[in-house]
Amino acid sequence: MIRYMTSGESHGKQLTVIIDGIPAGLKLNVEDINKDLERRRGGFGRGERAQRIEKDKAEIVSGVRWGQTIGSPITIVVKNADWENNKKIMSLDAKDLNEKMFLLRPRPGHADLPGAMKFDRGDLRDILERASARETAARVAAGSIFKKLLYELNIKIYSFTREIAGIEASVKDILSHKIISDIEASPVRTPDKTQEKQMMNEITKAKNMGDTLGGVFTVVAKGVPVGLGSHAQWDLKLDARIAQSLVSIQAVKGVEFGIGFEYSSRPGSKAHDEISYSKEKGFTRKTNNAGGFEGGITNGHDIVVSCAVKPIPSLMMPLKSVNIKTKKEEVAEKVRSDVCIVPAVGVIGESVVAYELARAVKEKFGADSVDELKENLNSYLHQIKNF
Amino acid sequence: MIRYMTSGESHGKQLTVIIDGIPAGLKLNVEDINKDLERRRGGFGRGERAQRIEKDKAEIVSGVRWGQTIGSPITIVVKNADWENNKKIMSLDAKDLNEKMFLLRPRPGHADLPGAMKFDRGDLRDILERASARETAARVAAGSIFKKLLYELNIKIYSFTREIAGIEASVKDILSHKIISDIEASPVRTPDKTQEKQMMNEITKAKNMGDTLGGVFTVVAKGVPVGLGSHAQWDLKLDARIAQSLVSIQAVKGVEFGIGFEYSSRPGSKAHDEISYSKEKGFTRKTNNAGGFEGGITNGHDIVVSCAVKPIPSLMMPLKSVNIKTKKEEVAEKVRSDVCIVPAVGVIGESVVAYELARAVKEKFGADSVDELKENLNSYLHQIKNF
Amino acid sequence: MIRYMTSGESHGKQLTVIIDGIPAGLKLNVEDINKDLERRRGGFGRGERAQRIEKDKAEIVSGVRWGQTIGSPITIVVKNADWENNKKIMSLDAKDLNEKMFLLRPRPGHADLPGAMKFDRGDLRDILERASARETAARVAAGSIFKKLLYELNIKIYSFTREIAGIEASVKDILSHKIISDIEASPVRTPDKTQEKQMMNEITKAKNMGDTLGGVFTVVAKGVPVGLGSHAQWDLKLDARIAQSLVSIQAVKGVEFGIGFEYSSRPGSKAHDEISYSKEKGFTRKTNNAGGFEGGITNGHDIVVSCAVKPIPSLMMPLKSVNIKTKKEEVAEKVRSDVCIVPAVGVIGESVVAYELARAVKEKFGADSVDELKENLNSYLHQIKNF
Amino acid sequence: MIRYMTSGESHGKQLTVIIDGIPAGLKLNVEDINKDLERRRGGFGRGERAQRIEKDKAEIVSGVRWGQTIGSPITIVVKNADWENNKKIMSLDAKDLNEKMFLLRPRPGHADLPGAMKFDRGDLRDILERASARETAARVAAGSIFKKLLYELNIKIYSFTREIAGIEASVKDILSHKIISDIEASPVRTPDKTQEKQMMNEITKAKNMGDTLGGVFTVVAKGVPVGLGSHAQWDLKLDARIAQSLVSIQAVKGVEFGIGFEYSSRPGSKAHDEISYSKEKGFTRKTNNAGGFEGGITNGHDIVVSCAVKPIPSLMMPLKSVNIKTKKEEVAEKVRSDVCIVPAVGVIGESVVAYELARAVKEKFGADSVDELKENLNSYLHQIKNF
Repeated sequence: MIRYMTSGESHGKQLTVIIDGIPAGLKLNVEDINKDLERRRGGFGRGERAQRIEKDKAEIVSGVRWGQTIGSPITIVVKNADWENNKKIMSLDAKDLNEKMFLLRPRPGHADLPGAMKFDRGDLRDILERASARETAARVAAGSIFKKLLYELNIKIYSFTREIAGIEASVKDILSHKIISDIEASPVRTPDKTQEKQMMNEITKAKNMGDTLGGVFTVVAKGVPVGLGSHAQWDLKLDARIAQSLVSIQAVKGVEFGIGFEYSSRPGSKAHDEISYSKEKGFTRKTNNAGGFEGGITNGHDIVVSCAVKPIPSLMMPLKSVNIKTKKEEVAEKVRSDVCIVPAVGVIGESVVAYELARAVKEKFGADSVDELKENLNSYLHQIKNF
Repeated sequence: MIRYMTSGESHGKQLTVIIDGIPAGLKLNVEDINKDLERRRGGFGRGERAQRIEKDKAEIVSGVRWGQTIGSPITIVVKNADWENNKKIMSLDAKDLNEKMFLLRPRPGHADLPGAMKFDRGDLRDILERASARETAARVAAGSIFKKLLYELNIKIYSFTREIAGIEASVKDILSHKIISDIEASPVRTPDKTQEKQMMNEITKAKNMGDTLGGVFTVVAKGVPVGLGSHAQWDLKLDARIAQSLVSIQAVKGVEFGIGFEYSSRPGSKAHDEISYSKEKGFTRKTNNAGGFEGGITNGHDIVVSCAVKPIPSLMMPLKSVNIKTKKEEVAEKVRSDVCIVPAVGVIGESVVAYELARAVKEKFGADSVDELKENLNSYLHQIKNF
Repeated sequence: MIRYMTSGESHGKQLTVIIDGIPAGLKLNVEDINKDLERRRGGFGRGERAQRIEKDKAEIVSGVRWGQTIGSPITIVVKNADWENNKKIMSLDAKDLNEKMFLLRPRPGHADLPGAMKFDRGDLRDILERASARETAARVAAGSIFKKLLYELNIKIYSFTREIAGIEASVKDILSHKIISDIEASPVRTPDKTQEKQMMNEITKAKNMGDTLGGVFTVVAKGVPVGLGSHAQWDLKLDARIAQSLVSIQAVKGVEFGIGFEYSSRPGSKAHDEISYSKEKGFTRKTNNAGGFEGGITNGHDIVVSCAVKPIPSLMMPLKSVNIKTKKEEVAEKVRSDVCIVPAVGVIGESVVAYELARAVKEKFGADSVDELKENLNSYLHQIKNF
Repeated sequence: MIRYMTSGESHGKQLTVIIDGIPAGLKLNVEDINKDLERRRGGFGRGERAQRIEKDKAEIVSGVRWGQTIGSPITIVVKNADWENNKKIMSLDAKDLNEKMFLLRPRPGHADLPGAMKFDRGDLRDILERASARETAARVAAGSIFKKLLYELNIKIYSFTREIAGIEASVKDILSHKIISDIEASPVRTPDKTQEKQMMNEITKAKNMGDTLGGVFTVVAKGVPVGLGSHAQWDLKLDARIAQSLVSIQAVKGVEFGIGFEYSSRPGSKAHDEISYSKEKGFTRKTNNAGGFEGGITNGHDIVVSCAVKPIPSLMMPLKSVNIKTKKEEVAEKVRSDVCIVPAVGVIGESVVAYELARAVKEKFGADSVDELKENLNSYLHQIKNF
């Protein structure tokens, strides 16, 4: 059983993630994690904060010894590089309480208001500090480890920006080696050079207006064996679990597998991926409309899943709101923020898909060491081959 | 903690669902359940099977006594009315094994092939019997109970067909009393009389072609208090849990909250629901683009969530496939089926949303009896009012 | 992930259990289950009810086809053979409510009073029907399947009575083949012929006094590979999980592993099982004081775990109580019951230990078919051998 | 839902615990936690290490702001004060790998051997670092918070040493105020002054012999309302969950509720706690043999649960073992250790019982703020009073 919990507030001392169930013998070093953290920070359209404050590094403080996992829970800490400036506002100490610092004007689209009502807090900061997408730095750190584990099994996970502000990238051949390196080189993480420029233009325009932009990103997992997830009980369906993990990312408001919402306008005869067979490749399909899932089970083709990302609700040109203390209408708190985070959310998406795949792999193959895991996978692949 | 498990094969003796955690003192009778089962069976575009075979009734066999729940797990059985005809093919007995009856040609889009490979079964029936959407009859039966519990708290759940085969209904004023009764009266469960005809035409055409159709349905929950779900940990976000539950429904390939994928083309200034306040209503918004969620927490507005439904992969004009024994290309098994199930899946959607809401309600308010639950809800509503 | 839920009231229509996660391809027939149900019913000291009312049989209603599991959840139903006589008292129908039938005098030692207060029920029957040990028939039915699965991996589970009413059996050589068959032949399920007579005498005496007796039973699992469970997180320790499962059995008030409470009076130098090695057997120990666990992990020796069973709190010579309606002191309800259930509880103990082992096996080895499970186990055993 | 995960190795950089689900508005300061950490470190019979190395302090790094919890997950870090000396041996860096430092001679009674075989590690340190009872410092830190929450509800948790090396304390009147302060003042945490001396003598003797001693401790929870836990499903029984949590503590080999194993020699007529009633106190019992549980539900009396603790398996006079590399018989690794930890384990026992109670309280009463929790509890207590 692989599981993880994160903690930490946006301006707090540190983010922490504990990851349970990673097999022993996985080679790990903190640089892999930092590389992903950097990918998450990046993207044209990110504000100063992402660049400056989040320049911090991951540190592994448990579960790894002499370059390898040892079966213990792994803990990663991402310290807040700007902690000195936040010490008072995030102090543990009751005597630092300062009503003048209370945030009182909830931002529409954020957890501010419903969270404060639920937890009965007079200062919106008590909610927004945790609801902030900064939390996903911890998930991305964990995701690096899940990806590393999957990589040992030849499962690789990518993401790209499919759309920003209504401008759709055209993406063929999901995802060739060439395309993947194009994506990583693109400031908006899209492989379509033409649309990339348009997207960047839109971001610049929105920035100038004090506005923000949403979009769609796609996560692709390649090399996934047939048979992860199960049709047998509702909560074992792997696509459904992936949906939960993706929607749990801040700002994600929709998710679709393969052609997703386009299914609604295609007849069955043009929707499903017909099956063929060859001795070398076994069972295959020419299309992958299903995005790699049938009946909640991976079918051996790439997992392709896309998410709608709403524009960030922290606007420099703030929306109408109400002061929770005076109940007077005022504009929402102005919090320094990004213009467009779609490229970054793609990286977060990779992380949570990696989690769900690693978890499903462990459920199917068990194993307490990487060698045992590979052994079990291989003997299953042999069984599949002779099916 | 409310949870449930279902069991049973499509042509097996019975479906069963055990539901744990319903407070004591909830008035229940089997007729409410049967009404929902009937709604699930209905809809223009359903095949004979839904009508004939599934005419069976629910039976409560535990957890209810003298008209009320008593705190024990509730068990509902839905017997297979056609069991006599399936006794051999679904026999428990090893001596009934009959290789001639094996289903060998997997249907693209179904769990048939990946399931058989995963579980190492030579007869596709071993998979498709459980993967079948017939399982959802058990979930709808459970859903009736969740809805009944929520109803005690003034939370009501509806659904309607938003789109079939690319034809979109126009739905204003989600969801007035009048509209709800229109939906229930509509053969395709849509409130738009004009589009209803178009949808029905498309279904008739598809039927004549031996084809199938997908679409989009929307589930709406009204009367949901602010504060269900939590931003504090990724797996506590209620919209994400609802996404899992919805994607776990057979044929659902996408899910979106509020305006969902449309967020990707709206700037922040036009995307979020501005906050206002009045003494009578407390905090409100004029729009509900967010579909009732901010930060994974309900914000007191209607939950509005929509799902993409793929066309049923069981076609009368079957797709290309491969015989799993001979490895020769053949057409897929032809299983009697429906043309369009979108209206019915909406009813299933209500059930799983009801589950997630009931579970979240129990997490927030605890309680072992309906009276205690109401008491705790009311004292929270009082707190909210004075926030 | 293997899990199960039970439902059903003692005098209700049926008990039900749904079991999730059993690999496909396990040969099952209902007779194995019925054999265990019969073992649970037996034992010198059981009342008429166990013999008469519980003569019912298990029926598998899902998850098995043509003699094998198919990966679907398995459902077992145990019908109440005496249902006709209980129809009114356990009716679903509100119109059968009859205040005269209310049970009002809680039995000390049962869930009657705390349960009724918790769930706010005026009729104690609403609680005691579910709290009754009759529920364990469902767990024993499930246990048969877990044992069958473990048997495929050469893990075998036994139980015996260690003590009744202070009379302790002397048990050497836990557990040779000979001893096992002695146990199954003994009316009190103990291998010590001398003490068996004493135990039976005590039971007879207690019966004549209208009293009841407790005792201690031991469950032994043989053939368990080293390495089930984990030290890495508190809730992964397998001995702790087994403790939960055992204490969850009605009437169990204590549990100990190996020499258990005797550890408290032994110095470390005489407490632990020293390690030796031989080429044929690998690492071994001459003693097994630890009962097969070190650090929450199986160490390859027999699991030996014992439980204290309280005397049944339903006495023919009832204890003092209070009428919950009038608040007057009265004697407790007199419910027909057994004198001593220790031998039977041992059988239930086997079932829940089998559950925890099957669950741990699945966590360690994964697998969706019995063949895959064996393959993974064997490759691990090979790894262990070369450690 | 309250849950927690710990991480960290005994000589690693730090222990970490993340706690999820604590309501907002709980006043917390780190001194309460440090006080419990100190209690855990203490006790006559502890070695130098407990005193020296563990002198470190807890630090709260998330979830608390301006003196109160805010609904976010709480993270506590306990740094290793001796980290500088362990940096090489516990380095993350592959280049620090040093085969000469490998621990090769497993200690009988520890996870060393089964853990190394399971996770396929050549250095026993990879296992023993995590299996070490040092991990419980994290659990005790978490336990302080659970206790604090319970204290707000007037639930208080204590522990004492019942037995060391076969010497039993006589404890009457569990637990008056006077007795509690006696316990805290006692070097072995026992209220029996006479036996205290004997216990200390035995510890001194054992120390001189290079041996270790076990014993029994008891945890008592006072002020627990009737109705926590549930009889309705096996895994909801609260005594069973407490049993799991207690057995998950390193060195605990048995657990019993109330008179526990003594039940086995008492007839029913002398075993159960007869019920009486008074207007002021409601339903009461003169005895509490059951230790506060009936049917897995709290009955309003003190929870009394005792645990058998094995003598520490790290002996200065080491036991026979086998070198895992050479397979030659050698004595086990000699790791500096304590002579008797029973008094300390009692403190750990408090922590895990507090966890299970806090979790059960949250399940029964829900609530996201301490005020809401109290409100719900009070309205339930009112219901109970009028039952």
